[in-house]
Amino acid sequence: MGKKNKNFVEKVTAMEDDFAQWYTDVVKQAELVDYGAVRGTMIIKPYGYAIWENIRDEFDRQFKETGHTNVYFPMFIPESMLQKEKDHIEGFAPEVAWVTHGGDEELEERLVVRPTSEVLFGDYYSKNIHSYRDLPMLYNQWANVVRWEKTTRPFLRSLEFLWQEGHTCHATQEEAEAETSQMLNVYADVCENYLAIPVLKGKKTEKEKFAGAEYTLTIESLMHDGRALQSGTSHYLGTGFAEAFDIKYLDKEGKQQLVHQTSWGVSTRIMGALIMVHGDNRGLVVPPRVAPTQAMIVPIAQHKEGVLDKAYDLRDRLKEIVRVDIDASDKMPGWKFNEYEMKGIPVRIEMGPKDIEKEQVVLVRRDTGEKEFVSLQELEGRLPALLEEIQQNLYNKALAHRTEMTTTVTTMSELKQSLEDKGGFMKAMWCGELACEEQIREETTATSRCIPFEQEKVSDKCVCCGKEAKEMVYWAKAY
Amino acid sequence: MGKKNKNFVEKVTAMEDDFAQWYTDVVKQAELVDYGAVRGTMIIKPYGYAIWENIRDEFDRQFKETGHTNVYFPMFIPESMLQKEKDHIEGFAPEVAWVTHGGDEELEERLVVRPTSEVLFGDYYSKNIHSYRDLPMLYNQWANVVRWEKTTRPFLRSLEFLWQEGHTCHATQEEAEAETSQMLNVYADVCENYLAIPVLKGKKTEKEKFAGAEYTLTIESLMHDGRALQSGTSHYLGTGFAEAFDIKYLDKEGKQQLVHQTSWGVSTRIMGALIMVHGDNRGLVVPPRVAPTQAMIVPIAQHKEGVLDKAYDLRDRLKEIVRVDIDASDKMPGWKFNEYEMKGIPVRIEMGPKDIEKEQVVLVRRDTGEKEFVSLQELEGRLPALLEEIQQNLYNKALAHRTEMTTTVTTMSELKQSLEDKGGFMKAMWCGELACEEQIREETTATSRCIPFEQEKVSDKCVCCGKEAKEMVYWAKAY
Repeated sequence: MGKKNKNFVEKVTAMEDDFAQWYTDVVKQAELVDYGAVRGTMIIKPYGYAIWENIRDEFDRQFKETGHTNVYFPMFIPESMLQKEKDHIEGFAPEVAWVTHGGDEELEERLVVRPTSEVLFGDYYSKNIHSYRDLPMLYNQWANVVRWEKTTRPFLRSLEFLWQEGHTCHATQEEAEAETSQMLNVYADVCENYLAIPVLKGKKTEKEKFAGAEYTLTIESLMHDGRALQSGTSHYLGTGFAEAFDIKYLDKEGKQQLVHQTSWGVSTRIMGALIMVHGDNRGLVVPPRVAPTQAMIVPIAQHKEGVLDKAYDLRDRLKEIVRVDIDASDKMPGWKFNEYEMKGIPVRIEMGPKDIEKEQVVLVRRDTGEKEFVSLQELEGRLPALLEEIQQNLYNKALAHRTEMTTTVTTMSELKQSLEDKGGFMKAMWCGELACEEQIREETTATSRCIPFEQEKVSDKCVCCGKEAKEMVYWAKAY
Repeated sequence: MGKKNKNFVEKVTAMEDDFAQWYTDVVKQAELVDYGAVRGTMIIKPYGYAIWENIRDEFDRQFKETGHTNVYFPMFIPESMLQKEKDHIEGFAPEVAWVTHGGDEELEERLVVRPTSEVLFGDYYSKNIHSYRDLPMLYNQWANVVRWEKTTRPFLRSLEFLWQEGHTCHATQEEAEAETSQMLNVYADVCENYLAIPVLKGKKTEKEKFAGAEYTLTIESLMHDGRALQSGTSHYLGTGFAEAFDIKYLDKEGKQQLVHQTSWGVSTRIMGALIMVHGDNRGLVVPPRVAPTQAMIVPIAQHKEGVLDKAYDLRDRLKEIVRVDIDASDKMPGWKFNEYEMKGIPVRIEMGPKDIEKEQVVLVRRDTGEKEFVSLQELEGRLPALLEEIQQNLYNKALAHRTEMTTTVTTMSELKQSLEDKGGFMKAMWCGELACEEQIREETTATSRCIPFEQEKVSDKCVCCGKEAKEMVYWAKAY
């Protein structure tokens, strides 16, 4: 990366030409992320982090509202502890980082940098849960985790990323399952109502579930290029970890019972979804509800007397009702337009000498490019309404895209053809056998994304083997 | 740790008998922390984390108010990068954790788990700062860091802890030094006005400064037992890292210049100060401004008709103005009193049938134990005022303690005697020579805490060598 003039905003590669390059360009040009010194790590820059903070704060608010408390657990896991739950260690061991030395000394036991923290919470719960009075125990933590991935991309797959992991214990299976669903709904709510990303809700197949879970619920979203992104998962763990870690409580009758557990997580990966669902060839598009700056004032002919004063007055008036900023630097307005379009700021407010004369401003929407003239008297009413319209429009466009990119198929050749022609979600019946799931992956590279809660019987037969179908599954190529 | 009845609140060891044990008891009984699976690590439990969140949020607010933006840098540092700044690597190498393997493979280059991130930010700045227009660059991150300490104690010294680290770049020495002071003042403000902890502000000696800094500013506070705790530090880094990492900018005249840098940090260590400054033999005492629960309603004779309804009504009324909670569990009121005293909740609100009849409640202060009867009409006015009185009283008590525990000494025998008799801060003149500083440490175990900004000439001669004194220093035994 050479030293170049920062005032110059480069164009991004057109997504139709090279979607992966478009993504990389946007991430870089919108100043979301830079590459870390260690392969596969990322630096989250101020603008990227500010968006993440808004997303995180809304999740955190909803976690607290649903009775969860935050905690912080250490990031080192002794090797022997990770091995206590068999499926779990098999799932995670190949992709963990190992600490072997502290200072100048070799450690007696190697430590894993947490890839996830079920075992640490399990160990804690076994010591801290005694009676039914201690239940439910509803913990969450915001933390960094490490997974030693071979191929990495900013936000989507990196060696280290930020996430939250909820870990809860319940007296009964029923309560734990209700929690599993509740948290999936929280994830879906934030995705749909804040990130403006429509999601499919459903269950993962046995093959795709979390290592150590009874089952995994998931929300799946669709990117511009027709590939799916798993955007959050909520696991019902059953009593597997409770058995491995001896997490028991005395019930009201004085009997020892195993707790039923859940865990659930969303990560900075969701930033990748935001980029790939809403972005366009002019850069990022940030939904107003999570935008650090919702409206950017760009003064026109700011050297003329009174323009800057009026622009600052406007900023002061508006900052009570929206997240507004002003760019009064000496760059040309055209450069500023490009820069804030690249950063996806929802609304640009232009104000020049003529506008001041007419007591109006120009509002320019990032999502459609539409301009409107609004009188200063009406601005306090119009601007929040416009932001809501943009929020809704982004959601509607994403939903329309997903609808258009969802195809019902009943044969393997249809499945292949449709994946090749346009990608997206394929609705197809499945017999429930692993062999068919694997064969579909082999022949098409598509994976089962979820068994949706909203089932439709699109055929009687499995799309792969033709035997009796058990359920409808969404298939897609995925990130 | 055995499984015991959670309803039973154990007493803590009296601090006069064994201060270290008192501390450990409070940390445990107030449910702030538990020990992690790896030696020297800690689990921050819900109550401890909720206090930390309040402290963190106030710091974060002030960082943003002073123009800083949050970012997130990876936690792994390549060994070669850590070695770029000579003093820095010498200071930190003995106490870092090493990652040597990723998955099944040995890494080509060992990675350090960050003990602090100057080198990572330095590397980034060298690539991202080009012109005077890019300055100042004012970054902060909230993160976990690891220092491989031999002796550990919850909050005070643990292998892994949470902190924030600010890293800034400036065009001139003057600006960087102003930043260094400004951030020390932010730290002092939060300590004094939110944590109710009076601090001494000053400069560290050369021996005690941060590895790689030109100089270090510090805030020092005094614990109940007469030992000092470094509570936050702000470093002027000069151009040392800029030289090591080639961080240059083009000035207005088109000349290449090195940037001047600062870094500054506060950590979960400050939780230790909160405990040891305000706590007493009944447990923790939390200053109202950072208390997750400022007032706890304990219904009396809650089985009697109407009591619980009225108590819930009260909660609903008060939650608009203070952070209030209610304990309507079937534990005895006496148990509840003990539990919330242990947790240091500033005010207990008792409400029983007689109070309901008289339309009043009983307010009990945690800091003094004083009770007052307040009519329901006056409660909305009285409760916030009482919380402010408690906040002030805690600060005043801590300040009075520090004043009482600060002694002026002019000879080594006075210094030794006074440290032995009562501990606390020793004000003594110093010649500025490392030899004297080391001799004082050797003979008394006290270290130089700071060269205070507010200087007093308490003598003409160095307390140790008797030669001409350069400045007054606060000395103390420290955590």
